[in-house]
Amino acid sequence: MSYSRTVEIDGHIIDSGTMQRCFGAVMDLGGSFDVEQFDVGTHEEAESYCRMAVSADDEETLQAILHELHQNGAVLENPSDVELVAAPADKVVPPNFYSTTNHPTEVLYDGEWIDVDRIEMDCALVVEPDGEDGPRAYTKVLDAVEEGDLIATDQSGIRVNPPERPRSGGGAFGFMQGGVSSERPSESTIREVAAELREVTDAGGTVMVVAGPAVIHSGAGEALARLVEAGYVDSLSAGNGFATHDLERSLYGTSLGMDVETLEHPRKGHKHHIWTISEIIRAGGIEAAVEQGKVTEGVMYQCVQNDVDTVLAGSIRDDGPLPDTITDAVEAQNAIREQAHDADIVLMLATLLHSVAVGNCLPSTTKTVCVDINPATVTQLLDRGSAQAVGMVTDIGTFVPTLAEFVLDEGDDDTPAESGVSVNDSGTQ
Amino acid sequence: MSYSRTVEIDGHIIDSGTMQRCFGAVMDLGGSFDVEQFDVGTHEEAESYCRMAVSADDEETLQAILHELHQNGAVLENPSDVELVAAPADKVVPPNFYSTTNHPTEVLYDGEWIDVDRIEMDCALVVEPDGEDGPRAYTKVLDAVEEGDLIATDQSGIRVNPPERPRSGGGAFGFMQGGVSSERPSESTIREVAAELREVTDAGGTVMVVAGPAVIHSGAGEALARLVEAGYVDSLSAGNGFATHDLERSLYGTSLGMDVETLEHPRKGHKHHIWTISEIIRAGGIEAAVEQGKVTEGVMYQCVQNDVDTVLAGSIRDDGPLPDTITDAVEAQNAIREQAHDADIVLMLATLLHSVAVGNCLPSTTKTVCVDINPATVTQLLDRGSAQAVGMVTDIGTFVPTLAEFVLDEGDDDTPAESGVSVNDSGTQ
Amino acid sequence: MSYSRTVEIDGHIIDSGTMQRCFGAVMDLGGSFDVEQFDVGTHEEAESYCRMAVSADDEETLQAILHELHQNGAVLENPSDVELVAAPADKVVPPNFYSTTNHPTEVLYDGEWIDVDRIEMDCALVVEPDGEDGPRAYTKVLDAVEEGDLIATDQSGIRVNPPERPRSGGGAFGFMQGGVSSERPSESTIREVAAELREVTDAGGTVMVVAGPAVIHSGAGEALARLVEAGYVDSLSAGNGFATHDLERSLYGTSLGMDVETLEHPRKGHKHHIWTISEIIRAGGIEAAVEQGKVTEGVMYQCVQNDVDTVLAGSIRDDGPLPDTITDAVEAQNAIREQAHDADIVLMLATLLHSVAVGNCLPSTTKTVCVDINPATVTQLLDRGSAQAVGMVTDIGTFVPTLAEFVLDEGDDDTPAESGVSVNDSGTQ
Amino acid sequence: MSYSRTVEIDGHIIDSGTMQRCFGAVMDLGGSFDVEQFDVGTHEEAESYCRMAVSADDEETLQAILHELHQNGAVLENPSDVELVAAPADKVVPPNFYSTTNHPTEVLYDGEWIDVDRIEMDCALVVEPDGEDGPRAYTKVLDAVEEGDLIATDQSGIRVNPPERPRSGGGAFGFMQGGVSSERPSESTIREVAAELREVTDAGGTVMVVAGPAVIHSGAGEALARLVEAGYVDSLSAGNGFATHDLERSLYGTSLGMDVETLEHPRKGHKHHIWTISEIIRAGGIEAAVEQGKVTEGVMYQCVQNDVDTVLAGSIRDDGPLPDTITDAVEAQNAIREQAHDADIVLMLATLLHSVAVGNCLPSTTKTVCVDINPATVTQLLDRGSAQAVGMVTDIGTFVPTLAEFVLDEGDDDTPAESGVSVNDSGTQ
Repeated sequence: MSYSRTVEIDGHIIDSGTMQRCFGAVMDLGGSFDVEQFDVGTHEEAESYCRMAVSADDEETLQAILHELHQNGAVLENPSDVELVAAPADKVVPPNFYSTTNHPTEVLYDGEWIDVDRIEMDCALVVEPDGEDGPRAYTKVLDAVEEGDLIATDQSGIRVNPPERPRSGGGAFGFMQGGVSSERPSESTIREVAAELREVTDAGGTVMVVAGPAVIHSGAGEALARLVEAGYVDSLSAGNGFATHDLERSLYGTSLGMDVETLEHPRKGHKHHIWTISEIIRAGGIEAAVEQGKVTEGVMYQCVQNDVDTVLAGSIRDDGPLPDTITDAVEAQNAIREQAHDADIVLMLATLLHSVAVGNCLPSTTKTVCVDINPATVTQLLDRGSAQAVGMVTDIGTFVPTLAEFVLDEGDDDTPAESGVSVNDSGTQ
Repeated sequence: MSYSRTVEIDGHIIDSGTMQRCFGAVMDLGGSFDVEQFDVGTHEEAESYCRMAVSADDEETLQAILHELHQNGAVLENPSDVELVAAPADKVVPPNFYSTTNHPTEVLYDGEWIDVDRIEMDCALVVEPDGEDGPRAYTKVLDAVEEGDLIATDQSGIRVNPPERPRSGGGAFGFMQGGVSSERPSESTIREVAAELREVTDAGGTVMVVAGPAVIHSGAGEALARLVEAGYVDSLSAGNGFATHDLERSLYGTSLGMDVETLEHPRKGHKHHIWTISEIIRAGGIEAAVEQGKVTEGVMYQCVQNDVDTVLAGSIRDDGPLPDTITDAVEAQNAIREQAHDADIVLMLATLLHSVAVGNCLPSTTKTVCVDINPATVTQLLDRGSAQAVGMVTDIGTFVPTLAEFVLDEGDDDTPAESGVSVNDSGTQ
Repeated sequence: MSYSRTVEIDGHIIDSGTMQRCFGAVMDLGGSFDVEQFDVGTHEEAESYCRMAVSADDEETLQAILHELHQNGAVLENPSDVELVAAPADKVVPPNFYSTTNHPTEVLYDGEWIDVDRIEMDCALVVEPDGEDGPRAYTKVLDAVEEGDLIATDQSGIRVNPPERPRSGGGAFGFMQGGVSSERPSESTIREVAAELREVTDAGGTVMVVAGPAVIHSGAGEALARLVEAGYVDSLSAGNGFATHDLERSLYGTSLGMDVETLEHPRKGHKHHIWTISEIIRAGGIEAAVEQGKVTEGVMYQCVQNDVDTVLAGSIRDDGPLPDTITDAVEAQNAIREQAHDADIVLMLATLLHSVAVGNCLPSTTKTVCVDINPATVTQLLDRGSAQAVGMVTDIGTFVPTLAEFVLDEGDDDTPAESGVSVNDSGTQ
Repeated sequence: MSYSRTVEIDGHIIDSGTMQRCFGAVMDLGGSFDVEQFDVGTHEEAESYCRMAVSADDEETLQAILHELHQNGAVLENPSDVELVAAPADKVVPPNFYSTTNHPTEVLYDGEWIDVDRIEMDCALVVEPDGEDGPRAYTKVLDAVEEGDLIATDQSGIRVNPPERPRSGGGAFGFMQGGVSSERPSESTIREVAAELREVTDAGGTVMVVAGPAVIHSGAGEALARLVEAGYVDSLSAGNGFATHDLERSLYGTSLGMDVETLEHPRKGHKHHIWTISEIIRAGGIEAAVEQGKVTEGVMYQCVQNDVDTVLAGSIRDDGPLPDTITDAVEAQNAIREQAHDADIVLMLATLLHSVAVGNCLPSTTKTVCVDINPATVTQLLDRGSAQAVGMVTDIGTFVPTLAEFVLDEGDDDTPAESGVSVNDSGTQ
């Protein structure tokens, strides 16, 4: 005996790889499919449509297959309304609750497909039947679930829209590259990122920078500060270590005790790092230290002066910490979440921890640039289904200054920014 | 005005990703397509067929697109015979000569599709009209081209058959994984490799091992020697360094001067390495040293005793070299080529140089296992379109002993080999 | 004009590298030295003594030099009592406060050298004149400083004792290797670690394990659970991710949705991970889940059953988190600190974040084993002046099972544990 | 009973780490020492002297200890003449022949210490009693040994002079750093390298560049070509792959089929690579192709135009190869050897194979700069006892353009070259 259901899939489902994944999932999981209808889009702009019956030897296998197909955008034929169950207690979700993807999602409620707000993966999906403007659906992390929240269970009545291949393409922001293109020309790629940054900023969009301490160690702090000063950074997500190293440069002219200009005194056991923390504590925080004239340059200084939305998230490896650091992980995550949901483009600079935290909150549609010297870090960060992502395995200490040069059009004979823009016109969309 | 051609593609072209790549290539290169017919296979075993017209604004773009489609298996509607041009001199190919892929290939000659022998990428394709058994087609590296060879040019009359997704699948030998699955359970994956090794050997197939010096440094030499002794290695492709380190163990009980059992004396400047080379030179070569009773254990010893086909390829970083080393790169490559063409499964163990050399000669249908501690090495080796490949980022020093234990069924309570076989039955195909 | 001071250094200061570092520091920082007396120990057991005048062109340079010499164990001739200043407010230290190293330290108080308790780097040094047993000195992190604490400033009256080269040596636990010995035989090194683990446990010492999620992904969870069950783990320091993946194995038999035995279904978007968290929340925590019979195997199960001191520290990348996770970084750090101070040997398994956090709290005298597939991680963890450390770049998925086999003496023909012990007798000391 | 010998060591033996290594070697190998005299240099410029008796329980251990001490510069008290034995046949050395280090070396012949020419490690040491200017000593690789050559055996009468710590120091070219300073500011370090490059060139010295294909893929080819054109490169050591990729840029404007300016068409299966090789073969080689006007830009073009001494060494992974490639490893090694012996500074750019080959031939006194994105590569290359070496883990695609900008003083507002020089004045020395 065989268990069977019929699903429908539509869109650019061949060239986006959707059908490859759907057919593959059925075969990998031991089921079989029977294509009842397949209308292939005959040209680039035409969408395709597939209706197929999927069957398996047992209901459990069938459900596993349907789960995979669902995540790739398939919907049951004749779907019914989303099934909602009230949360029995704070932080406690109903059994079999629906766990979200990071793709745009809709729920069928009262016969209408409504968009889910605040898309983020691994969340519960809550429906408020009586919102101000009618029924509203949105995500909630488990920790935020409150008793009585109506939580979606199963996956019927829920439609996921994975990103599709853009019709014209190429450029650095490729579609679902997944891998890391270490064989691309570095400066050309930076030019494209610079062009994108200018375009987002010119269009009034929001640029979010996620930065690790290596930005400062590697001597790139000054270049990042220039980008902040020039208005190309709207929010900064970092940690206690990044801020401390940046402030050390301003207070002592060193990073980890080494003069970053002359390379002198690179020694262990230096005191500047911990002294910096104690000075900021004494001042009452970073903003106070800037106001008191103690801190007069650097990334944190420019963030204070330019009202950049800054979140310093604590971690168990922190010294101090600085008074500005949010030490509670859940509270810090919520602050990061707000930044991430607002961002139009995110630059992840040499930090795995903070980049993963931000990446967890991002919908798959947000443009992302991941830069790290360690290919494993870049691979891990790109491997989340982001539709438009650039991964670069490069040295943050040369990347940021080069990026700043291209973005700020700093007297380069080749007028990099312009050529960057022209590349962008034809390429990155 | 627009330039246009019509191509046909058939097979498991949706779930193997063929159509995704073909549509993508057209769009990436700025062309457009018009699907004239698309018959979708309605179930797992049914093949699909697509005929589409491809057009571009100029002939050059159209040719670039057709080249991409060709490499993915597309054939021009109503193809004509392959175009052959005689090589004007030794090593010199005609302009616009056809450069091969590593996929199974056919040429249309005298109205008949004939298979191309000795498939290998980046070669010239030679047709002998008057072979013993009729016309014959095969590959030749540029260096081997002789004046007068009939060399295929352009790509008309040539059909490439990229590997298709196996109908049932999974297991460690996944289809075109490309990436590296560092999140797989290590011991379970090794069990699958062991099962595959046993299966190939039991079926009378040929196992080729490509090994770097780290196999010996890491203490895995003894385990590899046991595999050779037990008949699980048919050919060994390595370098002067591997052989020297292995022989040092036999002559002095050390590797790089360190006793591999007691870990004592790991010092630079040791003399055993260069003394080993001079002793083998004095003996007249490895086989002579074994016959003279100077070398009594280790991988090279077992290879001599078990008539394993061994190629030691020279490189510019070699000490010595040993008299057995083939110092000419072209000659060494030819020896490696023979090994590679005969292999049914290839184990690449902790060597980038030799693995790339072997990989260059392999058709995409040969099973491959790449093991290295460096993820970049594994990624580079897998990134060649091999259809059935396992990449493992692991420690060769624990991998080989664990593999030997599983293959040789060495008194493990869990009877690993048996459970390995059962995994294999259902999984790796 | 020149500024000058006289310092004394004694101990095994030549073969431990102390004098090399001291002379080097003077020259690097632009000063000069005049050796007034140097008594060289004439044999292995004899200590040396050096008294030298150090001078520089300005007081600031001289102080920088003296700081370096101090950290290497030098003491001013005729030292005066430690200078104490009361903390002006909670968390606020006096300017020029003394920041600790991770080496054993003494302070001169009231003419007596007293040992500093709870050695840890980057802390304030507090002296309580009226302790129960007389004056007491100990470290405090900045965050824990309370108004009125008597805090050491400057460095006069403080003596640091960096680890010296052991008189007999070698083995895997080398002296200040700093680097990573990827060219050591892997299995032999694991044998030495196993022998050390048995020795510490047999002697009633405390074994601390720091573990990342890769331990579970890589299939090593079961082997670690066996080590816990057999009593070889006294404390576990991990995060929400490690615990969740381990519990997923117990609840669903999968890790990241993949069956770790059959390697089937390794797909993204699986629900087991987040369902595991919701199940544990529903149960009221891990211990409750064990008591309710929901969790019946795995590392966390064994930790509950064997009363292992377990700390789960939160981070901003956590899902959930589990109710057992300490989400505040400062609070989590304090819990980790207690574990670290109690440990006789620490195994750091495939986690950078938690290992750095633990490493920050460890005195330089604690034995440490760092295992990671990424050499950069191992290098970073070893680069903290630990006197007896083993760094292994290897696959955690084969390391832990091999370690368990050697520690638990699991029916290996070579009786590994015994030979491990014998290696240890002669080697690791 | 005990075996004993007396040795002498002198020089800056404390701050160069010599005595630490010597005492350590004795203890590690299980011997004991008795310091008979130790005169410590009392200030920076004063040398020290140590005479000590070393003893062990057996002659073999004593010899192992003496070997270690010898390599660190110790000489037996009252040394006797070097022991010479005639080579019994071509390529065959006497048993117990002396294998060289890469440090400056002298031999005692006829009562006189004479310098050994052509210092290189792992070679035989040959003495010609009747040279033109009296007795002459030099190194020979095993392969070059001829019957009758007088080969040094044992180590008596041979004195090694390992590099000593420079009296003033610091800067990027640190003394025996060994490790890799990923925490240095990248641009500042490149400035120091640029200053050094200018200094060597201005002083009429020889700059050798060792380059891998990644230099071209990463888009850095044009910058390197500018450095060649401006006279900052005297010799180039590379392989068939580097030259082919560079020539492809000139012939087709692409690298691996991708336009390096617009980033378009990065596809596999491109034909440009193999077509480039066939075009150069057709032309009769690179120089011929330049003369025929086929190649008009790029690194190889500039090398031809500027008479740069170029060696292209073959390897088993080569396509083609180009007619200019030396395919025999021994012959290629000899060509590389000549380049290496002439070099005053060597830049190793993103190639492990060629860098190791060059490094094998370099004396420890040659300045070396190693640049690679992979830290393991940099570590391996630095780990050879080079006295003045800079290792940078960075992106070659930004390193070379930044270096060219600094060296060529290309209209940067900060006038980098000048500030670079000033840094150098005070620093690198």
